[in-house]
Amino acid sequence: MTSRDQQEVPPWIAAATAGDAAQHAYDIDQAQSLRGRAMEWSPWATRQMPPSKVAPIMLTGGVPDPASLPVDDLIACNERVLRREGELALMYGGPQGYGGLREWLASDINRREGTDLGAQHFVLTCGSAGGIENLCEALLDPGDVAIVERPTFAGSTRTIKSCLADIEGVAMDDDGLLPDDLERAIAAAKAAGKRVKLLYTIANFHNPAAATLTLERRKRVVNICRREGVLIVQDDAYGAISFGSSPLPSLFTLAGGDGAVLVGTFSKTLATGLRVGWIMGAKPVIDAVTRMRFDMGVSPWTSRVLAEYCASGRYDAHIPRVIEIYRRKRDAMLAALEERCASRARWSVPQGGFFIWLELGDGIDPKALADAAHEEGVLVVGGRAFFDNGAGANFIRMCYSNVAEADIAEAVMRFGRALDRAAG
Amino acid sequence: MTSRDQQEVPPWIAAATAGDAAQHAYDIDQAQSLRGRAMEWSPWATRQMPPSKVAPIMLTGGVPDPASLPVDDLIACNERVLRREGELALMYGGPQGYGGLREWLASDINRREGTDLGAQHFVLTCGSAGGIENLCEALLDPGDVAIVERPTFAGSTRTIKSCLADIEGVAMDDDGLLPDDLERAIAAAKAAGKRVKLLYTIANFHNPAAATLTLERRKRVVNICRREGVLIVQDDAYGAISFGSSPLPSLFTLAGGDGAVLVGTFSKTLATGLRVGWIMGAKPVIDAVTRMRFDMGVSPWTSRVLAEYCASGRYDAHIPRVIEIYRRKRDAMLAALEERCASRARWSVPQGGFFIWLELGDGIDPKALADAAHEEGVLVVGGRAFFDNGAGANFIRMCYSNVAEADIAEAVMRFGRALDRAAG
Repeated sequence: MTSRDQQEVPPWIAAATAGDAAQHAYDIDQAQSLRGRAMEWSPWATRQMPPSKVAPIMLTGGVPDPASLPVDDLIACNERVLRREGELALMYGGPQGYGGLREWLASDINRREGTDLGAQHFVLTCGSAGGIENLCEALLDPGDVAIVERPTFAGSTRTIKSCLADIEGVAMDDDGLLPDDLERAIAAAKAAGKRVKLLYTIANFHNPAAATLTLERRKRVVNICRREGVLIVQDDAYGAISFGSSPLPSLFTLAGGDGAVLVGTFSKTLATGLRVGWIMGAKPVIDAVTRMRFDMGVSPWTSRVLAEYCASGRYDAHIPRVIEIYRRKRDAMLAALEERCASRARWSVPQGGFFIWLELGDGIDPKALADAAHEEGVLVVGGRAFFDNGAGANFIRMCYSNVAEADIAEAVMRFGRALDRAAG
Repeated sequence: MTSRDQQEVPPWIAAATAGDAAQHAYDIDQAQSLRGRAMEWSPWATRQMPPSKVAPIMLTGGVPDPASLPVDDLIACNERVLRREGELALMYGGPQGYGGLREWLASDINRREGTDLGAQHFVLTCGSAGGIENLCEALLDPGDVAIVERPTFAGSTRTIKSCLADIEGVAMDDDGLLPDDLERAIAAAKAAGKRVKLLYTIANFHNPAAATLTLERRKRVVNICRREGVLIVQDDAYGAISFGSSPLPSLFTLAGGDGAVLVGTFSKTLATGLRVGWIMGAKPVIDAVTRMRFDMGVSPWTSRVLAEYCASGRYDAHIPRVIEIYRRKRDAMLAALEERCASRARWSVPQGGFFIWLELGDGIDPKALADAAHEEGVLVVGGRAFFDNGAGANFIRMCYSNVAEADIAEAVMRFGRALDRAAG
């Protein structure tokens, strides 16, 4: 047997690659699907800036605290899984994903919300982003309408647009989306002859707005969407990072499991690199999205390692530890903002999640602020990234989850100086 | 901090879940997208059979030899990666996937085929199935034509159909697809006013037909597709499992890197549960498919473990070991077929891959054969699963990769008895 290293480059190569490629170029721009043509690069691409003189402090990505990553536990769980069930962990797990992890997810929500769900009510996805993609492809035809909060997570609006669907925005305040505006948006779409297929809502610890939809509004949203036949898609990526003692019920539970799905993920509680999330819903909906899976499903390897991690009680022990980390970081950021930025911005106190959402006072130029923040050495995300309609220039999203706690005060001081300069 | 275990079910649950769900049911069938409605369940779903009296020997799934799975190495690589670069391995890796693994893939093809590729010519995907999905969504509009071999891998035709594209089939013989029939199929589609967007071909060690496209035909296929502006999508899942000493060049290399992509995977060489594959192509094509990624990319955790496995030389040492296993199993199956089935079927000798493709003689009823094989205790895949047009009832795919070598002769004896019974 010839080893691959010893293979010589075969003689046909020169002839084959010296062809007329220069004369003819395959034109992918001409060949792309309509869906592909509609897509720009991800909104996270940022404009080029000259190098900063100060090493920047990043208040940007919604990524967990680095010191909280359970490296030792993942090493131990991986070894246990591969030794005990390596053949199953390393073999196709089916489009719905590993049943053992889906069972654990069902037992977890049953314990927290008093539901009576089983593994059949879940499909595993490539993070919550993969779940939203899966739902959009199962539901949205070109010209259909998806309703989103304004602001909302830009990755999800990008996914919706990739299905050539139209987006209608619904206004929010500190208590979440405005049900009256939801009714208006549905009526407007219907009046235009369009079909409203889904409401995408981040009801808990909103990204970026940090608001939480109140119980009363949840009930109204459920009733409106039930009446109108609109599927509620609750993106609950941040739901488990709750600083309060009594989390509100999911819209799925409030809807009696009908006409609503919840999209969850291990990305924010554990690690964004795992790429394991899920959709929870009634079985006909789960079946419909599972039929739209063509990638042979989420890795049973990572899914089984996570199932081992969860079933051993490590996950339940991990959550209160990271909540405490994020509560301290939130408090540090709020204190620094109060001290340094209160005259130039307002914000609400997040009851969970990773973000503070600043509404800037009048007279602050967004481009001047971005330039000044860059020069001062602090990176934040400008609000326009979270609006599909060009609005949001007077907002800033600050993330406290990933920055070192010791750097938070300094980061906010730098941002405060940038605000002063941009107001100048 | 209240532990999650101690939380009581809150009082609003009873009221919330005792609602009027029974009176109103959200109708997913009405709400599904056209793409979703077009989708049946995966072709791997099989009809219900009564329990067999004999424990069946499975010659079905294209899955590696269980004893070959590198469990110890994956445990060691995982521990090394998480200790050395855990923060990066557990954080979003971007839609194109971990650069270090893409660099290794580039160096590997450069060494084997004399190309000059870099990490920018690759995007990581959820196995080759995820890569084909990614390509189809970037290329295919409803009504576009994708050309496939008849027979071909059913998962890929399912993915193509999910884009509401039309499928044209091209005939094969033991030397792969017939270029003349490819020209006919393209001309027919054009005459019908349709746009042919891609040719999907499994040029090496075809699944299920076990044929390999000859060098002369590869050159003709490249020339035809270049002339017609049709992208060649070479699914090379089995390409590395080669029993010969001089593998043929990829269509990508023969095309000078223009107008062809290769889809690869670690599924067949290592393990199907990893869910790490890739698309290799010119940068404009890779950019176009990467823009159509909405799932935040393949897990950097599994990708970095694989990069560690590959860069350490383990992968190059693994390949000849598994080739030897599959060569022995192929030979055992061929010997048993020669002894037991030669009068009732013909087959070609696979030069690589996992499958033998049997063409049955006249007078064998496929349903009687399936029933008899079930009763005798051997599972194979009927040929109709690999044809999009209802043909194939006179073919059987037998897989030798996953069955124990010691069981192969017995499995073929059982199949031979079933053939006798079905020939009545």
